[in-house]
Amino acid sequence: MASVILGFSCPDQPGIVHSVSSFIVTVGGNITESQQFEDRDTRLFFMRVEFDVPDTSDVAGVKAAFAPVASRFGMQWNLVESNRHSRLLIMVSKYEHCLNDLLFRHRSNSLAVDIPLIVSNHRDLEEMAAWYGIPFEYVPATDKSAAETRLREIVSEHEIDFVVLARYMQILSDEFCKDFSGRIINIHHSFLPSFKGARPYHQAHERGVKLIGATAHYVTSDLDEGPIIEQEVARVDHADSPDALAAVGRDVEARALAKAVGWHAEHRVFLSGSRTIVFK
Amino acid sequence: MASVILGFSCPDQPGIVHSVSSFIVTVGGNITESQQFEDRDTRLFFMRVEFDVPDTSDVAGVKAAFAPVASRFGMQWNLVESNRHSRLLIMVSKYEHCLNDLLFRHRSNSLAVDIPLIVSNHRDLEEMAAWYGIPFEYVPATDKSAAETRLREIVSEHEIDFVVLARYMQILSDEFCKDFSGRIINIHHSFLPSFKGARPYHQAHERGVKLIGATAHYVTSDLDEGPIIEQEVARVDHADSPDALAAVGRDVEARALAKAVGWHAEHRVFLSGSRTIVFK
Amino acid sequence: MASVILGFSCPDQPGIVHSVSSFIVTVGGNITESQQFEDRDTRLFFMRVEFDVPDTSDVAGVKAAFAPVASRFGMQWNLVESNRHSRLLIMVSKYEHCLNDLLFRHRSNSLAVDIPLIVSNHRDLEEMAAWYGIPFEYVPATDKSAAETRLREIVSEHEIDFVVLARYMQILSDEFCKDFSGRIINIHHSFLPSFKGARPYHQAHERGVKLIGATAHYVTSDLDEGPIIEQEVARVDHADSPDALAAVGRDVEARALAKAVGWHAEHRVFLSGSRTIVFK
Amino acid sequence: MASVILGFSCPDQPGIVHSVSSFIVTVGGNITESQQFEDRDTRLFFMRVEFDVPDTSDVAGVKAAFAPVASRFGMQWNLVESNRHSRLLIMVSKYEHCLNDLLFRHRSNSLAVDIPLIVSNHRDLEEMAAWYGIPFEYVPATDKSAAETRLREIVSEHEIDFVVLARYMQILSDEFCKDFSGRIINIHHSFLPSFKGARPYHQAHERGVKLIGATAHYVTSDLDEGPIIEQEVARVDHADSPDALAAVGRDVEARALAKAVGWHAEHRVFLSGSRTIVFK
Repeated sequence: MASVILGFSCPDQPGIVHSVSSFIVTVGGNITESQQFEDRDTRLFFMRVEFDVPDTSDVAGVKAAFAPVASRFGMQWNLVESNRHSRLLIMVSKYEHCLNDLLFRHRSNSLAVDIPLIVSNHRDLEEMAAWYGIPFEYVPATDKSAAETRLREIVSEHEIDFVVLARYMQILSDEFCKDFSGRIINIHHSFLPSFKGARPYHQAHERGVKLIGATAHYVTSDLDEGPIIEQEVARVDHADSPDALAAVGRDVEARALAKAVGWHAEHRVFLSGSRTIVFK
Repeated sequence: MASVILGFSCPDQPGIVHSVSSFIVTVGGNITESQQFEDRDTRLFFMRVEFDVPDTSDVAGVKAAFAPVASRFGMQWNLVESNRHSRLLIMVSKYEHCLNDLLFRHRSNSLAVDIPLIVSNHRDLEEMAAWYGIPFEYVPATDKSAAETRLREIVSEHEIDFVVLARYMQILSDEFCKDFSGRIINIHHSFLPSFKGARPYHQAHERGVKLIGATAHYVTSDLDEGPIIEQEVARVDHADSPDALAAVGRDVEARALAKAVGWHAEHRVFLSGSRTIVFK
Repeated sequence: MASVILGFSCPDQPGIVHSVSSFIVTVGGNITESQQFEDRDTRLFFMRVEFDVPDTSDVAGVKAAFAPVASRFGMQWNLVESNRHSRLLIMVSKYEHCLNDLLFRHRSNSLAVDIPLIVSNHRDLEEMAAWYGIPFEYVPATDKSAAETRLREIVSEHEIDFVVLARYMQILSDEFCKDFSGRIINIHHSFLPSFKGARPYHQAHERGVKLIGATAHYVTSDLDEGPIIEQEVARVDHADSPDALAAVGRDVEARALAKAVGWHAEHRVFLSGSRTIVFK
Repeated sequence: MASVILGFSCPDQPGIVHSVSSFIVTVGGNITESQQFEDRDTRLFFMRVEFDVPDTSDVAGVKAAFAPVASRFGMQWNLVESNRHSRLLIMVSKYEHCLNDLLFRHRSNSLAVDIPLIVSNHRDLEEMAAWYGIPFEYVPATDKSAAETRLREIVSEHEIDFVVLARYMQILSDEFCKDFSGRIINIHHSFLPSFKGARPYHQAHERGVKLIGATAHYVTSDLDEGPIIEQEVARVDHADSPDALAAVGRDVEARALAKAVGWHAEHRVFLSGSRTIVFK
């Protein structure tokens, strides 16, 4: 027996669920988890359904059987084996908290990803990568165009499914962001109110914020503004120095990013215009 | 156009979703919200689906059309109009925080319930009921058997769907609990670790707990131990007196209870053995 | 025996605590609670100390005894009897959730305030004020200058200590804000990221935020930007409509405001430039 | 200039703060942080004060100067240099999440501790210790008496200040617990309601808890019941398997333990009977 995950979105209309469930019956499938959502703003319908198929089914055959249904409703869709790990490229600079958190969860088998490579524009975290047994490649950011050329090669060579910017401190080109739309996750600090510009934790300290937050989101060409996947906050107070705020910030960043990465890896996140549908 | 909510549970097997979606197509329905869950422990399948039916449909007809499907799969099921408010009986003693919170939410139209009556074994909260314009009946608890006889009459006369013990400080008989199984919601404080016996906030203070919690649950004959619907916590510290802890406790009680009542009223809570499935 | 609260700030230097504790010994006082903080940014020192004084002490005498100490260190200071309730003016427009929450806490004796009057630029909440037994005055905002003249009279007549804008939807003049600096508390929604302009919950829905927040702060002439006293958040998801987000927003607004009002009433909040020191 | 931390408790009486502040003036000190608390239950007074002393002061001299004050008020006290790291012995078995979290924070300089040694009754985590560059000693638990003899030697040889049981799955003897009272921190899962016995996450799943918690506490001879230092919770729901609950549990355990260890290391935790005073 194999288990597969089907995810799709399409314009809403009557009969979608019925057609999908007919298809599942046809291939001998048994649903084990299913979620759906009708976005009243975009009039799009979203569905994620996980189902077991008999041993004799091949996944390619299941995909072929679904194609006509997808076509009829104009779906954007994806069907994968549940136990296939998504292939993740992690990009970092010098901060290690998010990288360590992701690698530790990977090592503990609590993230359903393979990590064929870590890329950085610095060599600082090479040793950490080595200890966790993950290959590391130094891609200097000095020549941005050359760097992105190399990144595209890496994505192709390693059959990367998605990229996580785990505190990667370089800005990707608009073209790169567009080509990998919905496949790059970034993490950044966020506050109430929000602060623009340098030294955000100093600004937060100066304004006396009582909560420190972090937002994990898909990258768009508008930096720090793409569709939000997850947000976390922690409480702070007047006695916390900017350094103490930054330490709290590191914890909430790592937590928000780990959740976003896990959900994306399990095909639980869908894009609906400028926002996400997350089937936890 | 009318909107209906269908909720059911049944032993899991292939084809359930397909049959339900066939039925919905047959009655001309369009799904607006749907959630399902397969409980791997009990091998039960749970589903809640909300769908629009054409003007010409009568809800009785829709129910009749579903009956054969329900029968085939051995379902426990319920089908109601979405805009029909559940009828709620609130029972209180002397504490007013949960009552005030529920009545305020009712008044603000953020709880989908009608409240035909408030019952109490004391007269203290009669004035509050009056201000919110809800009838109040004093049912003394001195003769427990007479009290429960009167409660059963009230449930029948007022066509009560469910009962909320909003800090009602009397114990209901086993028989009463059994007859209204899954239809009485209670709220009680809860702590890490838990404390038995009198004066829980004094015990919590003495043990120096750092979190104060509250649990909203269905009532079973084992008091304070029924299936959990919602839990809330708030942070406290060593400087909080037992009175301060109790004040925090009142807030988390009101919050947990309001959520549980709202979900139950919208038919989002299902029982699966000793636990609940909540389709938020 | 009487209990008093002394709060002050002054430029930091050695010997402050020693002088204060000498003074307390001199008046026969016994400290029951004390907090202090040295702000390394502003080089200001803050202290709040609560102490019992003998029956024979009069508070005026205690104040007179402290004046030379205050003078020596250039303190901004305040000394009041602990059991004296702060006098609070609540200003509202049409939203009732914050007003109801504050009045309920006042009624339950969990806010150490007297509320001599509620002022509104609408008559909608007059009935709620009446039920809680608090006088209500309609002060139309059509003529802003006349309104503020009347507000100043009210503050004076009723010996108001501080003002809470419990969803008062009018902007106060710069001059009014300045004259009551540190004595007006406002509540407003806040998000990650923040949204400017109209219909914030629609914007939040469109951006797919995962957390809804509220900020209670002192009012400055820069609306919604004064020193933050307290912030609260609650989790939401993609299925929440703008109305549902607004309902969650009302809950967090009421909670953040209640905490801010309680701390201010107990003289626990101090201003240090653009931020607050809160001795909880 | 040096900075020192003075912490003490003693029976409450007038004049304590005055005597302490006199002493600080005498040694030329300048207070940078100070907190105090009067426990109304035990009638004990607690104080933690951090102050700078002139270059010329030696800490031994400062201690000698304080001894008469301590003696007069019957204090239990401690005075240390602020920049002296507490020496921490970590004990583990096979679970690695708490160990990894503590070592990562240590490596990131966000825990003010030295970790001269990790001890385990298994060899599983030796490699992790090695990567973080911390010596590791295997102390088998098969002969409990021999193990504790060796532990006592280690504590002495390495001048250990406190011990953290980072998921150490052996029970220490009553005598050992007593001898190191207030110097051993343990972490354990905790729930609302609490569960006794084996497989707690299965029990929690079966009861359908909505929150998973963890409690960091000092070890007493009554296992899992000592004075609480910190508690954390996270939200879960019906769809979470026992394994998923356990994964959430690992995160909250690591978080609660890290906070408790940090506060203890900075001498912020005081014992008051069965509970703690934590000056954050």
